[in-house]
Amino acid sequence: MDSHVSPVPLEKAYRLINHGPTVLVSARHAGMDNVMAAAWACGLDFDPPKLTVILDKVTTTRELIEQSGRFAIQVPTVAQMQLTYTVGNLERAKAPDKLQRAGVQWFDIDGHDLPFVADCSAWLACRLLPEPHHQETYDLFVGEVVGAWADTRAFANGHWNYENAAPEWRSLHYIAGGQFYAIGESLRADPVE
Amino acid sequence: MDSHVSPVPLEKAYRLINHGPTVLVSARHAGMDNVMAAAWACGLDFDPPKLTVILDKVTTTRELIEQSGRFAIQVPTVAQMQLTYTVGNLERAKAPDKLQRAGVQWFDIDGHDLPFVADCSAWLACRLLPEPHHQETYDLFVGEVVGAWADTRAFANGHWNYENAAPEWRSLHYIAGGQFYAIGESLRADPVE
Repeated sequence: MDSHVSPVPLEKAYRLINHGPTVLVSARHAGMDNVMAAAWACGLDFDPPKLTVILDKVTTTRELIEQSGRFAIQVPTVAQMQLTYTVGNLERAKAPDKLQRAGVQWFDIDGHDLPFVADCSAWLACRLLPEPHHQETYDLFVGEVVGAWADTRAFANGHWNYENAAPEWRSLHYIAGGQFYAIGESLRADPVE
Repeated sequence: MDSHVSPVPLEKAYRLINHGPTVLVSARHAGMDNVMAAAWACGLDFDPPKLTVILDKVTTTRELIEQSGRFAIQVPTVAQMQLTYTVGNLERAKAPDKLQRAGVQWFDIDGHDLPFVADCSAWLACRLLPEPHHQETYDLFVGEVVGAWADTRAFANGHWNYENAAPEWRSLHYIAGGQFYAIGESLRADPVE
């Protein structure tokens, strides 16, 4: 594992996606690994940390998650914009070489039988909490976060450090038609009592 | 209604929150209006447009939504950071003067019996799709978007225009402890076929 990849305490894991980045969703089943992009992923609870992600019925990644009961959410960087857009726009079933075309490299994290995408800024290992009605009706999947890690060059001591990191570490926020926004300036509100 | 507030076609309404901004959630019931902040709001479907929002059981806004069956989601701006933080941190039940302290100003939109927060960049009127299990278990509420509007100085012709708008129009993306990030630079991926 890359020496910059460091565990994040579970009680702070929600901070990794609280700013609404577009994420990568990966899964493994029966020897197959896949990854897709998702703009619709969102925090759901703090303790234990949970999140939601919307997974269209046509996606191979959804099938792998339904079969294995687990998935990884990762926060891609500005340097990975083209990778993110490519894995979000090619369907594995129609483009079997999708991962090679996107340039996806995997790495392992001990104790978690999941494919993690290298060079992201953060990773969350999730256990599927089955909710058949919401999965079928809304394509909405609920995950409990059971492990979290971040690259210390972008997130350390429980805080994103975008303002001091190199610009290519910033998170991506998708709109439509290939257009993303990078995250910007840090701002701080006055205390409210 | 402010002359800059313009309707957004429903098929493009998802773009108003696709980049994961922190939002304001407002509701009205029996003569009472309230608003709270929510970092956990997310797109759910394109057509008809739907979204999810997490509403803690202690919030007055949740009660108003459960009673009225409708709510508004709005995208606050950098200029509204302190307002956003204040309505997110004060509970109406304990601080009856919350709205005055935050400086909330309301406006009306014809045909929608909802309180809309003035000076935001976008507004989505939503009809609650009752899902009792998810509301009770996860505090997760599903809304169908039945009307959408944006301030044309920030969003026009189906696109955010943060790169040309004044910086105070940018969206807010909350982390924790009063820290937000503003949305940043626009980036465009190459087409993928």
